[in-house]
Amino acid sequence: MRIVAIRECAVAINSTQRNSRFDFRSMDTSVVAVVTDVVRDGAPLCGFAFNSFGRYNCSAMIRDRFAPKLLAADPAALLDDAGTNFDPARAVEVMLQRERSGGHAERCIPVGTLELAIWDLVAKVEGRPLYRVLADRFNGGQARDVVPVYVGGGWYAPGQTPADLAREMKGYLAAGYRMVKTKIGGLPLAQDIERIQTLLELVGGGQALAVDANCGFDRERAFAYAEALAPLGLRWLEEPCDPMDYALYRELSEVYPHALGNGENFSGNRELENFLLYSGFRPGLDVIQVDPPLAYGIGEYVACLATARRHGFGPESMYPHGGNLMSLHVVAGLGLAACEAYTGVFGIFSGFGEEVTVADGHATLPESPGIGFERQPALWSVMRDLAGVH
Amino acid sequence: MRIVAIRECAVAINSTQRNSRFDFRSMDTSVVAVVTDVVRDGAPLCGFAFNSFGRYNCSAMIRDRFAPKLLAADPAALLDDAGTNFDPARAVEVMLQRERSGGHAERCIPVGTLELAIWDLVAKVEGRPLYRVLADRFNGGQARDVVPVYVGGGWYAPGQTPADLAREMKGYLAAGYRMVKTKIGGLPLAQDIERIQTLLELVGGGQALAVDANCGFDRERAFAYAEALAPLGLRWLEEPCDPMDYALYRELSEVYPHALGNGENFSGNRELENFLLYSGFRPGLDVIQVDPPLAYGIGEYVACLATARRHGFGPESMYPHGGNLMSLHVVAGLGLAACEAYTGVFGIFSGFGEEVTVADGHATLPESPGIGFERQPALWSVMRDLAGVH
Repeated sequence: MRIVAIRECAVAINSTQRNSRFDFRSMDTSVVAVVTDVVRDGAPLCGFAFNSFGRYNCSAMIRDRFAPKLLAADPAALLDDAGTNFDPARAVEVMLQRERSGGHAERCIPVGTLELAIWDLVAKVEGRPLYRVLADRFNGGQARDVVPVYVGGGWYAPGQTPADLAREMKGYLAAGYRMVKTKIGGLPLAQDIERIQTLLELVGGGQALAVDANCGFDRERAFAYAEALAPLGLRWLEEPCDPMDYALYRELSEVYPHALGNGENFSGNRELENFLLYSGFRPGLDVIQVDPPLAYGIGEYVACLATARRHGFGPESMYPHGGNLMSLHVVAGLGLAACEAYTGVFGIFSGFGEEVTVADGHATLPESPGIGFERQPALWSVMRDLAGVH
Repeated sequence: MRIVAIRECAVAINSTQRNSRFDFRSMDTSVVAVVTDVVRDGAPLCGFAFNSFGRYNCSAMIRDRFAPKLLAADPAALLDDAGTNFDPARAVEVMLQRERSGGHAERCIPVGTLELAIWDLVAKVEGRPLYRVLADRFNGGQARDVVPVYVGGGWYAPGQTPADLAREMKGYLAAGYRMVKTKIGGLPLAQDIERIQTLLELVGGGQALAVDANCGFDRERAFAYAEALAPLGLRWLEEPCDPMDYALYRELSEVYPHALGNGENFSGNRELENFLLYSGFRPGLDVIQVDPPLAYGIGEYVACLATARRHGFGPESMYPHGGNLMSLHVVAGLGLAACEAYTGVFGIFSGFGEEVTVADGHATLPESPGIGFERQPALWSVMRDLAGVH
């Protein structure tokens, strides 16, 4: 039982949308296929993943630095003790040989993406959907039956009118979502507040609406938005400022009475630990949004959960960023708060595929073995070609 | 006046040495050449740099992500107001378009390496060595005449005997160096202390010897070494633990009476700021070792200096890691404490080239325009071929 090939390709996300800081027209992500010598139904068993959204592809790092380490390793070093399945933690250990301390962002994305693909393999070897495997290993066997989901939407788009935004949001509600998130900071404050007021009427109140500044505010603007947003009782205010400006987060948490969110730009457990030590983040209120493939993978995410717990934050504080199907399994298997959904905005990576249905703000779970990319047709056609399986 | 091509190649460092955590046999670095349409002596003016030591090459990031941004930019956007020279800060601004917040390590190395190459261009356009340009722009015209230097040496090597280590160190002393650094943590504590005792006799006391654990210690081992090293009065104890474990640095600084060192694994000013806010680092005692090409370049280093100063650390606390000729210019031009020298350990990247002489612990400065890689023959032959100039 061994990995025989690792293939990757970079795929454009094909989006002209904007957040508070930039547009996404050059954004892409890496798709990876880990091909094994295990044969199922006459074809080699393959694990798949992609590196979520927002940090560009990591193809060269996979191809030149991390895949060669996995392929050069003693195959037994990548298996569990019984030798009957792959072991994602051991794969990470192999990938981190001869790597320096600190500077995690340099490598946490390719390592995390490969780790996710190996989890896809692990679950396929067990013949079960990934969330059930994760529940057994890390959550006492308890998996969510359905998963609370919310839509990451409300981007700024060229020529967008208030009616366009309302139409977008109505579409999410019609599709079964109950909570949505919208971008802020791409317009002057007064216009942003108007946008939000329109959306509040549509979704029926602040607890169904979060806002996301994508780290776009300096100190003055962060406080101005915090003051203007406070009366609205929104679900959370995400990334108001530099994600590593612990001191400013602390000050904001002292004046803003509702939830703050941060974490999608953390490179793993050490950055989360420092953030929780120094930022004044408030247990039971603020939300943590680490994205597994962007931060060393699911094993590191489980370490993040333990760190969060030591600082008073339980699974109800955990809202993984992006990742679509990957995050859906993590939320279901580890019993977390909710999963973000990018429904139609990121090309072939959009949505949860044809096995998942959304109703009344909750998503059902895929029952295919593994992550279930095989049932997400546009993405699967790229993955299938990459792996050379049909 | 414009950049017409950017070329890069990855070059192996060719070292079998070990620190406390790993050997360097797969280590490499990127060499970059920025070719312009400015003609000097019948050849296009080119800027050169490499990404220092210890973090692997960043060739794909340069080739696929950052060089294309520079080449696609309006040429005027990369020049100073007068349009008579390149502007490294504007080049960084262009490279950081559409880049996310946080996760600096993902990109600070390719950006820093290109920024250094653009500084090489700036100084060549002015027809002066880089340190003089830096002194004028950032240090009131004051440059060092000669630069205090110390050797980063004392690695663990396969089959190394105590006599080998002594021979290595005697070589540095014979070459004019007075202060050296040696690795610790690659052997049990008692054996490491023996190594250090031998070296102390050779160099003539603790202030001429620093030790470097390369982040290899957990909490227990960090305290054991701190206790054993305290009576020796060493120049500094570098990277005893995880560079981002601020809480452990704080505890160590409360028990270890001599200087601690950290910074070569920082990804820029934000990480330095957080470290100084929370680690208990002691102004006037501890030393800061940010490496310019590994951390967004010289412009970011100047921001780091301002941050350090706000926390009570003056230029006398600043010891840039690695970089050889690049760090030499930075130390001379900004009036910093001392420069690290890797004299013969990193293949063609070793040493300061034929313009620089070392005597009584100080290095003279190159007088070639720019950084002066043209007078470092083995490295120059790679750079020259890369740029296609002769």
